[in-house]
Amino acid sequence: MSRRIGDIDVSSAALSHRNETLPQLHSVGKPKKESILKEVGHTIKETFFPDDPLRSFKDQPASKRFLLGLQALFPIFNWGRQYNLSKFKSDLIAGMTIASLCIPQDIAYAKLANLPPQYGLYSSFVPPLIYAFMGSSRDIAIGPVAVVSLLLGSLIQEEFDPENDAHNYLRLAFTATFFAGITQATLGFFRLGFLVDFLSHAATVGFMAGAAITIGLQQLKGLLGIKKFTKNTDIVSVMHSVFGQVHHGVKHIEKGINPPSLHQIFFAGPHVIKGFRIGAIAGIIGLTEAVAIGRTFAALKDYPLDGNKEMLSLGTMNIVGSMTSCYVATGSFSRSAVNYMAGCQTAVSNIVMSMIVLLTLEFITPLFKYLPNAILAAIIIAAVVNLVDFEAMILIWKIDKFDFIACMGAFFGVVFISVEIGLLIAVCISFAKILLQVTRPRVALLGNLPGTTIYRNVQQYPAATRVPGVLTVRVDSSIYFSNSNYVKDRILRWLSDEEEANSKINLPRIQYLIIDMSPVIDIDTSGIHALEDLVKSLQKRDVQLLLANPGPVVVTKLHDSHLVQVVGQDKIFLTVADAVRACTRKSQEEA
Amino acid sequence: MSRRIGDIDVSSAALSHRNETLPQLHSVGKPKKESILKEVGHTIKETFFPDDPLRSFKDQPASKRFLLGLQALFPIFNWGRQYNLSKFKSDLIAGMTIASLCIPQDIAYAKLANLPPQYGLYSSFVPPLIYAFMGSSRDIAIGPVAVVSLLLGSLIQEEFDPENDAHNYLRLAFTATFFAGITQATLGFFRLGFLVDFLSHAATVGFMAGAAITIGLQQLKGLLGIKKFTKNTDIVSVMHSVFGQVHHGVKHIEKGINPPSLHQIFFAGPHVIKGFRIGAIAGIIGLTEAVAIGRTFAALKDYPLDGNKEMLSLGTMNIVGSMTSCYVATGSFSRSAVNYMAGCQTAVSNIVMSMIVLLTLEFITPLFKYLPNAILAAIIIAAVVNLVDFEAMILIWKIDKFDFIACMGAFFGVVFISVEIGLLIAVCISFAKILLQVTRPRVALLGNLPGTTIYRNVQQYPAATRVPGVLTVRVDSSIYFSNSNYVKDRILRWLSDEEEANSKINLPRIQYLIIDMSPVIDIDTSGIHALEDLVKSLQKRDVQLLLANPGPVVVTKLHDSHLVQVVGQDKIFLTVADAVRACTRKSQEEA
Repeated sequence: MSRRIGDIDVSSAALSHRNETLPQLHSVGKPKKESILKEVGHTIKETFFPDDPLRSFKDQPASKRFLLGLQALFPIFNWGRQYNLSKFKSDLIAGMTIASLCIPQDIAYAKLANLPPQYGLYSSFVPPLIYAFMGSSRDIAIGPVAVVSLLLGSLIQEEFDPENDAHNYLRLAFTATFFAGITQATLGFFRLGFLVDFLSHAATVGFMAGAAITIGLQQLKGLLGIKKFTKNTDIVSVMHSVFGQVHHGVKHIEKGINPPSLHQIFFAGPHVIKGFRIGAIAGIIGLTEAVAIGRTFAALKDYPLDGNKEMLSLGTMNIVGSMTSCYVATGSFSRSAVNYMAGCQTAVSNIVMSMIVLLTLEFITPLFKYLPNAILAAIIIAAVVNLVDFEAMILIWKIDKFDFIACMGAFFGVVFISVEIGLLIAVCISFAKILLQVTRPRVALLGNLPGTTIYRNVQQYPAATRVPGVLTVRVDSSIYFSNSNYVKDRILRWLSDEEEANSKINLPRIQYLIIDMSPVIDIDTSGIHALEDLVKSLQKRDVQLLLANPGPVVVTKLHDSHLVQVVGQDKIFLTVADAVRACTRKSQEEA
Repeated sequence: MSRRIGDIDVSSAALSHRNETLPQLHSVGKPKKESILKEVGHTIKETFFPDDPLRSFKDQPASKRFLLGLQALFPIFNWGRQYNLSKFKSDLIAGMTIASLCIPQDIAYAKLANLPPQYGLYSSFVPPLIYAFMGSSRDIAIGPVAVVSLLLGSLIQEEFDPENDAHNYLRLAFTATFFAGITQATLGFFRLGFLVDFLSHAATVGFMAGAAITIGLQQLKGLLGIKKFTKNTDIVSVMHSVFGQVHHGVKHIEKGINPPSLHQIFFAGPHVIKGFRIGAIAGIIGLTEAVAIGRTFAALKDYPLDGNKEMLSLGTMNIVGSMTSCYVATGSFSRSAVNYMAGCQTAVSNIVMSMIVLLTLEFITPLFKYLPNAILAAIIIAAVVNLVDFEAMILIWKIDKFDFIACMGAFFGVVFISVEIGLLIAVCISFAKILLQVTRPRVALLGNLPGTTIYRNVQQYPAATRVPGVLTVRVDSSIYFSNSNYVKDRILRWLSDEEEANSKINLPRIQYLIIDMSPVIDIDTSGIHALEDLVKSLQKRDVQLLLANPGPVVVTKLHDSHLVQVVGQDKIFLTVADAVRACTRKSQEEA
């Protein structure tokens, strides 16, 4: 029947009715106290095992569990059972396509890493085979990539000269590859995969663009046939070298498959630390690239990708690779894109590519002797030019200026200083942003949207109106030690500003301060103390504090700290509207 | 008239009415685009000038501005104009009281810093005088404090032996004091006062307790009259030394006021760096203590305290102190508490204390020769025993387990390793917590509180009911690179879990996913990409995405990135209730 009552009047009538009958229905919930063990367990689970990897093992007999474990470690035993001829046809075509792309790429990338060309081919033989058995992506194609090759090349030559001390250079390269694998496998094993997320999208865009420019500049050597070329990667040194003299020569490429190289890895002596440092950096960059590629294609085809499992398989393949004359391999973006376009179905395309590389190594490598330097340089430039993603940069500028600073920091760091410093700059800027926002959170002034019980930021909703005598603010962050004093001072500043403005136009003075706690997810002991100080300051000014919609953690902590007695249990409300109504009712009673 | 309509039925009728008429009233606000300069300016203002220090200078003639500037630098010219005899009486009594406390304390603390006793008295003469002119607190009493004295003592003796190389030891102490002042003044001048907040309450409690235990153990030397005592501050070394032999002797105390010491400061050579390192640490600890004390008393008496101005005055007093034979002084908690209790009105009580110290230095220091070591040790132990705040530790344990870990990290670090390492541990743990919470934010499941249009966390409000076919979640953090993938995966996991549960009990499948964006204050480019991936994944599963209550920054970024077209402008709602209604209405139309 109430539906028949006329237009706009109803809503306010209905609302005022709601205002008086409903609040008794619900009070602010105080969650049951969880034991500390349960709490810690929950944090650990969400940090390290958000994907609940053992879920499928539950309530299974031992034999089934063994099979599931085997399938978890080697996904090929899982998808292999549904493998059929039609899938193989697709994989065969895709594998042949990427093989034709990979052979010149491998030779070119090996040059970037200052290694003889056959090592690029070796790295496209063993690692893809291992990945095919252990990896969970269906689209990634494995092999050396430009950025990691450049990184290895520039870091190792700081220790050994690639021409005069080629033997030690090679040994350090295998050592770095070994430790890259160890780093990757360790991160995966300890489920620290989320650390890869610490390299933000913006930082990656900047880093890749910087690396591409650096690699491109290095190719001027091959393209222009310059003999004496700088080993520094920064733009100034390279430009100095460009104006030089001409040279020609194509190196001989060894025939035959990967020789063993376990005995060449430094396991003792001063080079272990160096190998570890270089390997850890190369391993993390490799991971970042592979995980980003894996995620992209997994989202396109909508299948799950387990980041930690990926790391474990990438790590294993690099550890084995370091013992079979390979240098760091990872998921290659250009190869994976071609693989996907050519219609690959499973990781079998990697096996096909690997077999073609095997045949190449056995029979046709001598032919590559006649591949000119200029062509190799052109191949690399063509591959890296797409890494400079102007569109992404423009979008980053439009969306988030701070991200853009991180992106440019990475870019200029790589171009003008070094690959490592560029990365470090980007990671630091990204974290500085998070810390800055936690240190200086917004404290928004709220107003009522006319005709509703909704309270919103007056900056975003200019129509929102303020209630006389009541100041409503919302703290837009959890309250931690790093912002607790700021939040308290900011709220008091709003109050002073309001009182000053009110006194000018003879409005009634502020009697109530309502804090909307909705975005305050957590509060620590410093935050509790700041709230306590706030209550004291407000009492001095004869202003009442009311809290609206505190979350479960905050409610628990308010009770544990007995701050709830200081504020008053009856001053905590389910919604801002409820709190405002309590204020206005009290004012009316007093009047 | 609607008010007369009966009980509970009305509310739902009224609500259903509201549901159909009100949403047209307001749409999600898109704030006007601010220029980049304005945006950056706002960030800088809130980071460095949240207190708007130049506000009072606005619209003032030049002469007035000069006066205001002078008053800003020397607050004594401001409050001095209202100073009167009755205030002076209070300050005189308070000053005499703290002087009687400070003289034995000074002698004892100088021993902690391995300095001759008169240097403690010197440090209670010059610095309080300067603070009285520049400081903004009315209650702080200035002088050497136990923790900073211990810190200086333990750090400087790593470089020079205080007994065999007393001259250089003293020089390094002045150098450290000079740089402590420089550090403090620089932080204040560049308005970096907020950095002091990075030492959380929990870390401070743990650090102070650890320092108190360390200092107390050191006193066993004087208390038991042991001659050969370890110089290490850790508990193991001290216990070894305790079981030793007996000694007696009270040193001679120099008569006369502070000699100049500018020429003794190391301004060149290898000791400058060491002095700087020690000074920076001592300066920051000193600041933390002074600012904490200043804030406590300012809150009690409700007057404003300018953290940056405090730093500038503390810094100036220590720079001048280092040139007049003082070592690092700061606000002392025990002295300030006595000052407050004795009824101090202004910083004049510091001047009174300073004058009494002056008289002491000139006339009665020789008498202190007969002050036994055991008494000095007892004075120190009595002063530091209150620094072990068990109640605060228990409260920290109750409120926040992570804070407790930081507190214990600081405590055990100081007791078992060193003062510096203890501090470092505490700061690192505190930041790790913030980063962990930003990396793994809660994603809560929401339900409708029956009889209202309010949606709340079902964990906190078990009465909240779910709407069939609709999954409503709330992301409890801004979406950044470090959590964007987790948030996306977590939402998809909720969806899978729900679908699995629904299929078991034959409930309709989930058709709509509503994300309550209220706590999502900001989103960066990685977050935008994650949302885009989420939309794609949901499309594959035939689930519609709806967003509720995005804030001003998020709305702007959704538009800038054109993600708003992907999601659909009509899929963004003012409240969760509006979004749910749109879903149910659409379902009814389809049915």
